[in-house]
Amino acid sequence: MSRTDIAAVNRTFQEAARKRDVDRIAGLYTTDAMVMPPDAPFVKGRESIKQFWSFAIQQMGVQDVQLNTRELEVVGDTAYEVGEAVLTLPSGAATAKYLVVWKKIDGQWRLHRDIWNTLSS
Amino acid sequence: MSRTDIAAVNRTFQEAARKRDVDRIAGLYTTDAMVMPPDAPFVKGRESIKQFWSFAIQQMGVQDVQLNTRELEVVGDTAYEVGEAVLTLPSGAATAKYLVVWKKIDGQWRLHRDIWNTLSS
Repeated sequence: MSRTDIAAVNRTFQEAARKRDVDRIAGLYTTDAMVMPPDAPFVKGRESIKQFWSFAIQQMGVQDVQLNTRELEVVGDTAYEVGEAVLTLPSGAATAKYLVVWKKIDGQWRLHRDIWNTLSS
Repeated sequence: MSRTDIAAVNRTFQEAARKRDVDRIAGLYTTDAMVMPPDAPFVKGRESIKQFWSFAIQQMGVQDVQLNTRELEVVGDTAYEVGEAVLTLPSGAATAKYLVVWKKIDGQWRLHRDIWNTLSS
Protein backbone atom coordinates (compact mmCIF):
# COMPACT_ATOMS: atom_id res chain seq x y z
CA MET A 1 0.00 0.00 0.00
CA SER A 2 1.44 3.32 -1.10
CA ARG A 3 0.57 5.23 2.08
CA THR A 4 2.16 2.59 4.30
CA ASP A 5 5.22 2.38 2.03
CA ILE A 6 5.74 6.16 2.06
CA ALA A 7 5.31 6.24 5.85
CA ALA A 8 7.97 3.54 6.11
CA VAL A 9 10.41 5.57 3.99
CA ASN A 10 9.81 8.56 6.27
CA ARG A 11 10.59 6.40 9.31
CA THR A 12 13.79 5.24 7.63
CA PHE A 13 14.68 8.87 6.90
CA GLN A 14 14.20 9.74 10.60
CA GLU A 15 16.33 6.83 11.78
CA ALA A 16 19.07 7.55 9.24
CA ALA A 17 19.14 11.24 10.23
CA ARG A 18 19.44 10.28 13.90
CA LYS A 19 22.38 8.03 13.03
CA ARG A 20 23.80 10.60 10.57
CA ASP A 21 23.78 7.88 7.93
CA VAL A 22 23.75 10.19 4.92
CA ASP A 23 24.35 7.36 2.42
CA ARG A 24 21.07 5.86 3.54
CA ILE A 25 19.29 9.23 3.38
CA ALA A 26 20.57 9.86 -0.16
CA GLY A 27 19.38 6.39 -1.20
CA LEU A 28 15.81 7.32 -0.25
CA TYR A 29 15.76 9.89 -3.08
CA THR A 30 15.34 9.18 -6.79
CA THR A 31 18.60 9.30 -8.76
CA ASP A 32 17.48 12.57 -10.39
CA ALA A 33 15.95 14.04 -7.24
CA MET A 34 16.04 17.72 -6.44
CA VAL A 35 16.32 19.16 -2.92
CA MET A 36 15.45 22.85 -2.50
CA PRO A 37 16.80 24.00 0.89
CA PRO A 38 16.18 27.56 2.16
CA ASP A 39 18.90 30.11 1.39
CA ALA A 40 20.60 27.77 -1.08
CA PRO A 41 20.60 26.82 -4.75
CA PHE A 42 18.87 23.70 -6.14
CA VAL A 43 20.65 20.49 -5.04
CA LYS A 44 20.42 17.88 -7.81
CA GLY A 45 21.18 14.16 -7.78
CA ARG A 46 22.05 11.72 -4.99
CA GLU A 47 25.72 12.60 -4.62
CA SER A 48 24.98 16.32 -4.16
CA ILE A 49 22.05 15.48 -1.88
CA LYS A 50 24.31 13.28 0.25
CA GLN A 51 26.83 16.14 0.56
CA PHE A 52 24.07 18.60 1.40
CA TRP A 53 22.61 16.44 4.21
CA SER A 54 26.05 15.57 5.51
CA PHE A 55 26.87 19.26 5.83
CA ALA A 56 23.43 20.27 7.14
CA ILE A 57 23.20 17.55 9.80
CA GLN A 58 26.70 18.26 11.13
CA GLN A 59 26.41 22.02 10.81
CA MET A 60 23.12 22.15 12.72
CA GLY A 61 24.08 19.37 15.14
CA VAL A 62 20.84 17.48 14.45
CA GLN A 63 20.06 15.05 17.27
CA ASP A 64 16.61 13.94 16.20
CA VAL A 65 14.21 14.38 13.28
CA GLN A 66 10.45 13.90 13.41
CA LEU A 67 8.49 13.95 10.15
CA ASN A 68 4.76 14.48 10.62
CA THR A 69 2.67 13.95 7.49
CA ARG A 70 -0.35 16.25 7.34
CA GLU A 71 -1.55 15.25 3.90
CA LEU A 72 -0.59 12.59 1.38
CA GLU A 73 -2.19 12.27 -2.03
CA VAL A 74 -1.24 9.45 -4.38
CA VAL A 75 -1.88 9.72 -8.14
CA GLY A 76 -0.58 6.57 -9.85
CA ASP A 77 3.18 6.41 -9.39
CA THR A 78 3.38 10.03 -8.20
CA ALA A 79 2.38 11.40 -4.81
CA TYR A 80 2.69 14.63 -2.93
CA GLU A 81 3.03 15.04 0.80
CA VAL A 82 2.57 18.10 3.00
CA GLY A 83 4.06 17.85 6.45
CA GLU A 84 5.87 19.33 9.38
CA ALA A 85 9.40 18.42 10.40
CA VAL A 86 10.61 18.87 13.96
CA LEU A 87 14.39 18.90 14.39
CA THR A 88 16.01 18.51 17.78
CA LEU A 89 19.10 20.70 17.81
CA PRO A 90 21.56 21.62 20.57
CA SER A 91 19.75 24.98 20.76
CA GLY A 92 16.30 23.36 21.08
CA ALA A 93 13.55 22.38 18.64
CA ALA A 94 13.22 23.85 15.16
CA THR A 95 10.09 23.34 13.09
CA ALA A 96 9.73 23.42 9.31
CA LYS A 97 6.87 22.82 6.92
CA TYR A 98 7.60 20.80 3.80
CA LEU A 99 6.20 19.70 0.44
CA VAL A 100 7.58 16.52 -1.10
CA VAL A 101 6.79 15.04 -4.51
CA TRP A 102 7.26 11.26 -4.38
CA LYS A 103 7.87 8.88 -7.30
CA LYS A 104 7.44 5.13 -7.34
CA ILE A 105 10.38 3.72 -9.30
CA ASP A 106 10.91 -0.03 -9.73
CA GLY A 107 8.31 -0.65 -7.04
CA GLN A 108 9.97 1.69 -4.50
CA TRP A 109 8.63 5.04 -3.35
CA ARG A 110 11.40 7.65 -3.36
CA LEU A 111 11.57 11.38 -2.58
CA HIS A 112 11.78 13.20 -5.90
CA ARG A 113 11.29 16.89 -5.16
CA ASP A 114 11.82 18.16 -1.60
CA ILE A 115 11.37 21.73 -0.39
CA TRP A 116 10.80 23.24 3.04
CA ASN A 117 10.90 26.50 4.96
CA THR A 118 10.57 27.64 8.55
CA LEU A 119 7.16 27.50 10.19
CA SER A 120 7.48 30.81 12.01
CA SER A 121 10.11 33.45 12.43
CA MET B 1 -3.15 21.57 -23.51
CA SER B 2 -2.25 21.40 -19.84
CA ARG B 3 1.22 22.94 -20.21
CA THR B 4 -0.12 25.92 -22.13
CA ASP B 5 -3.02 26.34 -19.70
CA ILE B 6 -0.72 26.33 -16.66
CA ALA B 7 1.65 28.79 -18.35
CA ALA B 8 -1.35 31.06 -18.98
CA VAL B 9 -2.34 30.93 -15.29
CA ASN B 10 1.23 31.89 -14.36
CA ARG B 11 1.06 34.87 -16.73
CA THR B 12 -2.23 35.91 -15.14
CA PHE B 13 -0.59 35.59 -11.70
CA GLN B 14 2.24 37.87 -12.82
CA GLU B 15 -0.11 40.48 -14.25
CA ALA B 16 -2.36 40.40 -11.19
CA ALA B 17 0.63 40.78 -8.84
CA ARG B 18 1.87 43.76 -10.86
CA LYS B 19 -1.59 45.35 -10.53
CA ARG B 20 -1.91 44.24 -6.89
CA ASP B 21 -5.19 42.58 -7.83
CA VAL B 22 -5.28 40.13 -4.94
CA ASP B 23 -8.84 39.00 -5.68
CA ARG B 24 -7.63 37.79 -9.03
CA ILE B 25 -4.58 36.09 -7.48
CA ALA B 26 -6.73 34.29 -4.89
CA GLY B 27 -9.06 33.11 -7.67
CA LEU B 28 -6.15 31.29 -9.34
CA TYR B 29 -5.96 28.93 -6.35
CA THR B 30 -8.28 26.00 -5.60
CA THR B 31 -10.90 26.74 -2.93
CA ASP B 32 -9.03 24.45 -0.50
CA ALA B 33 -5.54 25.57 -1.53
CA MET B 34 -2.66 25.84 0.89
CA VAL B 35 0.11 28.44 0.67
CA MET B 36 3.25 27.77 2.71
CA PRO B 37 5.25 31.03 2.94
CA PRO B 38 8.65 31.18 4.68
CA ASP B 39 8.60 32.17 8.36
CA ALA B 40 4.84 31.77 8.58
CA PRO B 41 2.17 29.19 9.35
CA PHE B 42 0.14 27.34 6.69
CA VAL B 43 -2.29 29.66 4.87
CA LYS B 44 -5.46 27.77 3.98
CA GLY B 45 -8.33 28.69 1.66
CA ARG B 46 -8.87 31.56 -0.78
CA GLU B 47 -9.87 34.21 1.75
CA SER B 48 -6.74 33.66 3.87
CA ILE B 49 -4.61 33.44 0.72
CA LYS B 50 -6.02 36.75 -0.48
CA GLN B 51 -5.18 38.38 2.85
CA PHE B 52 -1.71 36.87 2.79
CA TRP B 53 -0.90 38.16 -0.72
CA SER B 54 -2.46 41.53 0.02
CA PHE B 55 -0.19 41.92 3.04
CA ALA B 56 2.90 40.46 1.36
CA ILE B 57 2.66 42.53 -1.83
CA GLN B 58 2.12 45.77 0.09
CA GLN B 59 4.64 44.95 2.81
CA MET B 60 7.39 44.12 0.32
CA GLY B 61 6.38 46.83 -2.13
CA VAL B 62 6.32 44.35 -5.02
CA GLN B 63 6.62 46.13 -8.36
CA ASP B 64 6.99 43.16 -10.66
CA VAL B 65 6.86 39.37 -10.48
CA GLN B 66 8.46 36.99 -12.96
CA LEU B 67 7.65 33.27 -12.70
CA ASN B 68 10.11 31.04 -14.57
CA THR B 69 9.06 27.40 -14.85
CA ARG B 70 12.01 25.02 -14.77
CA GLU B 71 10.03 21.81 -14.78
CA LEU B 72 6.37 20.88 -15.18
CA GLU B 73 5.06 17.35 -14.93
CA VAL B 74 1.40 16.56 -15.51
CA VAL B 75 -0.17 13.35 -14.16
CA GLY B 76 -3.87 13.31 -15.05
CA ASP B 77 -5.59 16.20 -13.28
CA THR B 78 -2.59 16.82 -11.01
CA ALA B 79 0.69 18.48 -11.92
CA TYR B 80 3.75 19.72 -10.14
CA GLU B 81 5.93 22.64 -11.15
CA VAL B 82 9.42 23.62 -10.06
CA GLY B 83 10.43 27.16 -10.82
CA GLU B 84 12.16 30.38 -9.90
CA ALA B 85 10.36 33.59 -9.03
CA VAL B 86 12.02 36.96 -9.46
CA LEU B 87 10.42 39.81 -7.54
CA THR B 88 11.23 43.42 -8.27
CA LEU B 89 11.20 45.29 -4.99
CA PRO B 90 12.13 48.87 -4.04
CA SER B 91 15.39 47.42 -2.67
CA GLY B 92 16.17 45.53 -5.90
CA ALA B 93 15.53 42.01 -7.15
CA ALA B 94 14.76 39.06 -4.86
CA THR B 95 14.81 35.50 -6.14
CA ALA B 96 12.97 32.48 -4.76
CA LYS B 97 12.65 28.87 -5.83
CA TYR B 98 9.21 27.29 -5.64
CA LEU B 99 7.31 24.03 -5.86
CA VAL B 100 3.63 24.16 -6.80
CA VAL B 101 1.14 21.30 -6.95
CA TRP B 102 -1.56 22.11 -9.51
CA LYS B 103 -5.08 20.63 -9.72
CA LYS B 104 -7.41 20.70 -12.69
CA ILE B 105 -10.88 21.40 -11.31
CA ASP B 106 -13.92 21.84 -13.59
CA GLY B 107 -11.57 22.12 -16.55
CA GLN B 108 -9.42 24.85 -14.97
CA TRP B 109 -5.86 24.44 -13.70
CA ARG B 110 -5.48 26.04 -10.26
CA LEU B 111 -2.63 26.32 -7.77
CA HIS B 112 -3.33 23.83 -4.97
CA ARG B 113 -0.18 23.65 -2.85
CA ASP B 114 2.37 26.48 -3.07
CA ILE B 115 5.68 26.69 -1.20
CA TRP B 116 8.86 28.64 -1.77
CA ASN B 117 12.07 29.78 -0.12
CA THR B 118 14.99 32.06 -0.92
CA LEU B 119 17.48 30.98 -3.56
CA SER B 120 20.57 32.16 -1.68
CA SER B 121 21.33 33.96 1.52
